[in-house]
Amino acid sequence: MKTVETLESNVRSYSRSFPAVFSRARGSIMFTEGGRKVIDFLSGAGALNYGHNNQEIKAAISEYLESDGVVHGLDMATPAKVEFMETFSSVILRERTLSYRFQFTGPTGANAVEAALKLSRKITGRHNVISFTNGYHGQSLGAIAASGNRFYRKASSIPLSGTTFMPYDGYLGSADSPADYVRKVLMDESSGIDLPAAILVETVQGEGGINVAGKEWLQSIQALAKEVGAIFIVDDIQMGCGRTGEFFSFEFAALSPDIVVMSKSLSGYGLPLSMLLIKEAIDAWEPGEHTGTFRGNNLALVSGKAALTLYWRNQTFSQQVQRLGAFMRRRLDAIAHQHGNKFAVRGRGMVCGFDCKTTEIAEATSHRAFEKGLIIERCGPTDQVVKFLPALTIDQETLGQGLDIFEESLTETLNSARGS
Amino acid sequence: MKTVETLESNVRSYSRSFPAVFSRARGSIMFTEGGRKVIDFLSGAGALNYGHNNQEIKAAISEYLESDGVVHGLDMATPAKVEFMETFSSVILRERTLSYRFQFTGPTGANAVEAALKLSRKITGRHNVISFTNGYHGQSLGAIAASGNRFYRKASSIPLSGTTFMPYDGYLGSADSPADYVRKVLMDESSGIDLPAAILVETVQGEGGINVAGKEWLQSIQALAKEVGAIFIVDDIQMGCGRTGEFFSFEFAALSPDIVVMSKSLSGYGLPLSMLLIKEAIDAWEPGEHTGTFRGNNLALVSGKAALTLYWRNQTFSQQVQRLGAFMRRRLDAIAHQHGNKFAVRGRGMVCGFDCKTTEIAEATSHRAFEKGLIIERCGPTDQVVKFLPALTIDQETLGQGLDIFEESLTETLNSARGS
Amino acid sequence: MKTVETLESNVRSYSRSFPAVFSRARGSIMFTEGGRKVIDFLSGAGALNYGHNNQEIKAAISEYLESDGVVHGLDMATPAKVEFMETFSSVILRERTLSYRFQFTGPTGANAVEAALKLSRKITGRHNVISFTNGYHGQSLGAIAASGNRFYRKASSIPLSGTTFMPYDGYLGSADSPADYVRKVLMDESSGIDLPAAILVETVQGEGGINVAGKEWLQSIQALAKEVGAIFIVDDIQMGCGRTGEFFSFEFAALSPDIVVMSKSLSGYGLPLSMLLIKEAIDAWEPGEHTGTFRGNNLALVSGKAALTLYWRNQTFSQQVQRLGAFMRRRLDAIAHQHGNKFAVRGRGMVCGFDCKTTEIAEATSHRAFEKGLIIERCGPTDQVVKFLPALTIDQETLGQGLDIFEESLTETLNSARGS
Amino acid sequence: MKTVETLESNVRSYSRSFPAVFSRARGSIMFTEGGRKVIDFLSGAGALNYGHNNQEIKAAISEYLESDGVVHGLDMATPAKVEFMETFSSVILRERTLSYRFQFTGPTGANAVEAALKLSRKITGRHNVISFTNGYHGQSLGAIAASGNRFYRKASSIPLSGTTFMPYDGYLGSADSPADYVRKVLMDESSGIDLPAAILVETVQGEGGINVAGKEWLQSIQALAKEVGAIFIVDDIQMGCGRTGEFFSFEFAALSPDIVVMSKSLSGYGLPLSMLLIKEAIDAWEPGEHTGTFRGNNLALVSGKAALTLYWRNQTFSQQVQRLGAFMRRRLDAIAHQHGNKFAVRGRGMVCGFDCKTTEIAEATSHRAFEKGLIIERCGPTDQVVKFLPALTIDQETLGQGLDIFEESLTETLNSARGS
Repeated sequence: MKTVETLESNVRSYSRSFPAVFSRARGSIMFTEGGRKVIDFLSGAGALNYGHNNQEIKAAISEYLESDGVVHGLDMATPAKVEFMETFSSVILRERTLSYRFQFTGPTGANAVEAALKLSRKITGRHNVISFTNGYHGQSLGAIAASGNRFYRKASSIPLSGTTFMPYDGYLGSADSPADYVRKVLMDESSGIDLPAAILVETVQGEGGINVAGKEWLQSIQALAKEVGAIFIVDDIQMGCGRTGEFFSFEFAALSPDIVVMSKSLSGYGLPLSMLLIKEAIDAWEPGEHTGTFRGNNLALVSGKAALTLYWRNQTFSQQVQRLGAFMRRRLDAIAHQHGNKFAVRGRGMVCGFDCKTTEIAEATSHRAFEKGLIIERCGPTDQVVKFLPALTIDQETLGQGLDIFEESLTETLNSARGS
Repeated sequence: MKTVETLESNVRSYSRSFPAVFSRARGSIMFTEGGRKVIDFLSGAGALNYGHNNQEIKAAISEYLESDGVVHGLDMATPAKVEFMETFSSVILRERTLSYRFQFTGPTGANAVEAALKLSRKITGRHNVISFTNGYHGQSLGAIAASGNRFYRKASSIPLSGTTFMPYDGYLGSADSPADYVRKVLMDESSGIDLPAAILVETVQGEGGINVAGKEWLQSIQALAKEVGAIFIVDDIQMGCGRTGEFFSFEFAALSPDIVVMSKSLSGYGLPLSMLLIKEAIDAWEPGEHTGTFRGNNLALVSGKAALTLYWRNQTFSQQVQRLGAFMRRRLDAIAHQHGNKFAVRGRGMVCGFDCKTTEIAEATSHRAFEKGLIIERCGPTDQVVKFLPALTIDQETLGQGLDIFEESLTETLNSARGS
Repeated sequence: MKTVETLESNVRSYSRSFPAVFSRARGSIMFTEGGRKVIDFLSGAGALNYGHNNQEIKAAISEYLESDGVVHGLDMATPAKVEFMETFSSVILRERTLSYRFQFTGPTGANAVEAALKLSRKITGRHNVISFTNGYHGQSLGAIAASGNRFYRKASSIPLSGTTFMPYDGYLGSADSPADYVRKVLMDESSGIDLPAAILVETVQGEGGINVAGKEWLQSIQALAKEVGAIFIVDDIQMGCGRTGEFFSFEFAALSPDIVVMSKSLSGYGLPLSMLLIKEAIDAWEPGEHTGTFRGNNLALVSGKAALTLYWRNQTFSQQVQRLGAFMRRRLDAIAHQHGNKFAVRGRGMVCGFDCKTTEIAEATSHRAFEKGLIIERCGPTDQVVKFLPALTIDQETLGQGLDIFEESLTETLNSARGS
Repeated sequence: MKTVETLESNVRSYSRSFPAVFSRARGSIMFTEGGRKVIDFLSGAGALNYGHNNQEIKAAISEYLESDGVVHGLDMATPAKVEFMETFSSVILRERTLSYRFQFTGPTGANAVEAALKLSRKITGRHNVISFTNGYHGQSLGAIAASGNRFYRKASSIPLSGTTFMPYDGYLGSADSPADYVRKVLMDESSGIDLPAAILVETVQGEGGINVAGKEWLQSIQALAKEVGAIFIVDDIQMGCGRTGEFFSFEFAALSPDIVVMSKSLSGYGLPLSMLLIKEAIDAWEPGEHTGTFRGNNLALVSGKAALTLYWRNQTFSQQVQRLGAFMRRRLDAIAHQHGNKFAVRGRGMVCGFDCKTTEIAEATSHRAFEKGLIIERCGPTDQVVKFLPALTIDQETLGQGLDIFEESLTETLNSARGS
């Protein structure tokens, strides 16, 4: 840890929240240098849906390395890429009667978002992008402009432009149907809201506090995008790849986005990989108009294909995720109930937020949990929401242990606050 | 190839220039599915300075995978990261009496550039950034704003702001000392050029046409940055990691940048990794102010450490690169001489540009070369410069074969043009 | 008219709506070259609150010209300026227990708005400005960015930035209290709405469709500005100088804006003059930081002083305006009632909007009215609202005649639509 | 003065440089309240080319007022406007075989510049505008973005964008031909300089320090604009209306700008008036796309017509201005010569700059001159240039007296500096 504190920039973050050197990891368990076992409910911020060092996926990687398959080839054609696209098409798209082209962008979610916005602006000749309160889409200049968090926005140290924030589902309170407001300002020739190139939405806002959009709201946003000639983009970086129980987070609402942004768990092994799914009709790129040295990281395409093959050829995995998600939700609801329902539980599938209402409770609980052997992060405008992102492959016992630790930590935090 | 054409977005690019499926690669040789061997003078656009699938580096990766070392851990502390920082500090920095802190950004060069500009703007409270004609720094919105290429700039489809372009060394002709112009506008209270947060420079412009800045010019730019209170940033993404013969491309000019941007060959194996070296005095980040899911990609830190250990513990490798670079330069000068010196050769160390003066000659030559078994790319404002980026580990024989192919291809192209 | 059509740019506008050459004007009557008399309910878009060529004000101008008083003196001190400021202070400010400093900006409303935003950004170090749906503040780049109308916004042909539009009072429907939404996004650290330098508001939106803000909403916006550290600016360009019955349009709500923007009827004679009223505590300008050749137009200061002296030394004029306003409102309400209340009437004091609901009805009615001898304009997002801006000095008989013409024109328009 | 200091904002400026209350003015003489006579070499920053309260022009204004001609009519057709356009066309344009349409913008130079840039961006679909080092075009957000002065730029307190500054004629030193640099970056597809919507230039930079562009440079800039498809705009706000000896400042170079921006002395009497001259082929405005309450100020159109009729129907006035200009220049050259040519004299026609090289000398000299009875301002990046802008109608004797005062003031300033 000394080296980290001396040599790594002040910007380092998780090494402060979870102050240990992690030497090994397997599935949902991380091991510290000192030999401590810790349950991981953070899962690489959603990049490890299939757990750490998934052995079956590892086998595919090792074999590829062994064979001297092309690891880095810019965007030259490789069997790894061809097989990934074919597998994704057959296993994921065809099954859902979706049809998309693949664009492999620079291997960060932000880069994929930047590409999606570029393409939308190019197609429409418009500059504005509608994004939503509490939305999060990454930290390069184009992506952060569409993200709500002031801490990150201020860090850019220049005004961010080209985006308009609209209220997310539920933001105006339950009585309202906020998509009406979005519709009103877009239809109003004098609202000050320029017609958008794109509407960019998450179906569940992860960083923003585990805010869950409903089916009707999402459908009305999609319809509105079509009506005003805007590209409809779902950012499925964190909520895709099975997190909500289905492969895409928008399946439950039967959406058909013009562009889907994918990253995080796409490679299945925590390797950097990002891509856009683009409807053929709007694939208006000139060759090379958006490039990047590490686009189409072959090793990640190999692991990504392995993950698709292992988990998504039938419904079994999806059903299991939904079962585990329901289990987690029941436990969290019960915990909230115990505490007189002053806390809120939100989520869908295997993502849950436990809204502690105050930063202090959430922070102390998360801190205590780590001491007891659980890695769990916070989110929301003031980091007041404890965020549950266990691996989708976790076994119910470990999941239960992690939830036990959370429950104890919360109770102790509340007792200690009362005591002081 | 059919799958690629059907499923991959129009944006695909290298699979058009080099239309083959590449199944395997080793050192400087790539193998197509059909079994063709091709010499690679592109080297992943500079990401493969140690060649494809370098076997010694691969051993380190395989061992790490085998041991279930943490592959993805956000920016938690891992032995992989600690050892990378320690090795970089001792092998590279201490030897050069440099001292920096490490920031692992999202694993694209663009993301590292974005972070460098953010930090500079934060520190100085200024918004403007000086970059240079023909400079290239990446494609997210913040990075492309500092890049000269109109094709890429236009692709953003919104005005790019926050940067001012100044003439690069030599841009105004040899008689002028263009740093004088930069100095003049920065000192002039009425020039319209706002005082900059940062001056961002490449010592050799790769994408911009292999333009080589001189020692004095670079030193005067560094001095000017200091004088006007701007952060001095060297973008060593493509020219660092030994490309010019020394580890950092700015060593020959004894520069001491406030921030160094690194990526591409940093991981040594083509794995996505990017970082900033930041002087401690300006490490003004708040914890978490610039984040990203794949920052500090552990597998890449492992391979990066292996590369440093293998090649940079003494002067041998550096000397060999300089020797090979000199060989390549002599050959290219001779070729230019043969053609009556109507073509220009530029470069430093193991990067050379052969300026064909017209897009047509460069394009046809590169095309012909691929048919003959050489992958070689072009750069410059109109892609009129053939760019030589062989692996630094190439043997002289293969290097010579590649140069032979280039020479033949050029001659045939010129003959064919004359004939038509 | 031929000359106008040949020599004046396509941009010309009112000469199309009211196709006649106007040679003379007095009070509320304009005379065409052909000798036609037309009642003016447009009043220079609010610049002629005291009527055309008000004879008493004219006397002051003529005397000043005669004496060779300084007409143009940049912002040098002149008796004209001194007397204007003294008169404004004693007649207007002291009576209302307000205290402001005067800044004479370039003589357009837009320039005064630009100055107000500059100063707000300077004081707060923030860049964002909150303005409101359907708001209008002028057409230079800084002012149009805060204005809602898409037709004007598009005309800038570059993205407009630095502003966020919030729903104006009533925009979300009567059930909602939209200031709650503004409060929510400003308090929410993750809303995407950057903390504002200023909140810029009209108490009645003129161009936006005669939308009237209520006392409570305005007070809550003022309180919110204070709470978040933003400068509270009332744009009283069109609604000030007595238009709503009181000198400032915000007196009814007992507001105390940090900055008041004034123009249009400020000079009392249609001469270009604009100014800011700035609370001393925030008068943070450096000398000369906002300049302009025609700032503090002396002839306009002379006429402006005359107007203040003539009309505002006691309550008589204000009461008369309110009486006439009530008369106009009753008539318009009755007309709306006649037509089954399918049209809406909105307004305060001597400004009314008759919302025809469709562009066609409003356009045809206004057109017909001009043929019958009434100049009346339209406003609102699709120009669907007929806008009543008679001179405040109009006599009740002429006002009644104008309203009669409107009524006939509307009826004929509706009958003709029914017939077709 | 007390009232001014108490009630007027800190932003006031000329009332500090010339601390007196000016009650009357005639021709080139201003009279203070105390009865002091002061020669005016500032002339309303170029707005009073025909002197203060020109009696013949006044007669036209008085007659118009008397007749109740329309003073304010938005942009409705009036005889005043028709006659102005006809007179301008016949007296000015036809004589010079120029042909333009008239757009009357808001009555500030800045507003006219904003309109010119808007139209250029609309026509070309491009966003960038080329302006020049030390250029000045006004202070609204669109205009200040094209102006070089950092003091004014900073006052906006937000980043200014949409412009690129290029070196003005002579900026790179006499050996260089800086238009070559402009050409180079515009032709270079990788220079970072986006193709411009417009090139905006002054033929003599007034605020920037009286920098005089040569005929060849101006012609090459005009040719370059044409070549790259940019609108060529001459800002003749300060240098037009006879200041350089001819009506338009660009006649000597036989330019034919696509748009000419006019203001300041256009009304001939110091009344606010601004306009664009637009070539018919690019008059692409939609009706009403750029509006403003005070556009086409009728009183100013009346005085403007009178000025054209009085001074520009033949060559007499122009010749006299050139004679006086030559006289002034000889005197200033002689003064510079006396002081060993350490100071520079620049100018054309009746505008001269005496470059004192230091702010201190210029400031002290100007200050001393005012004490001795001469109003004279400074300009240039650090206000180091004394700016001579006498009325064009000044008699030689008064001009000589003013120059005498300047000479004495300079000498005393230098002696006093030497003494201290």
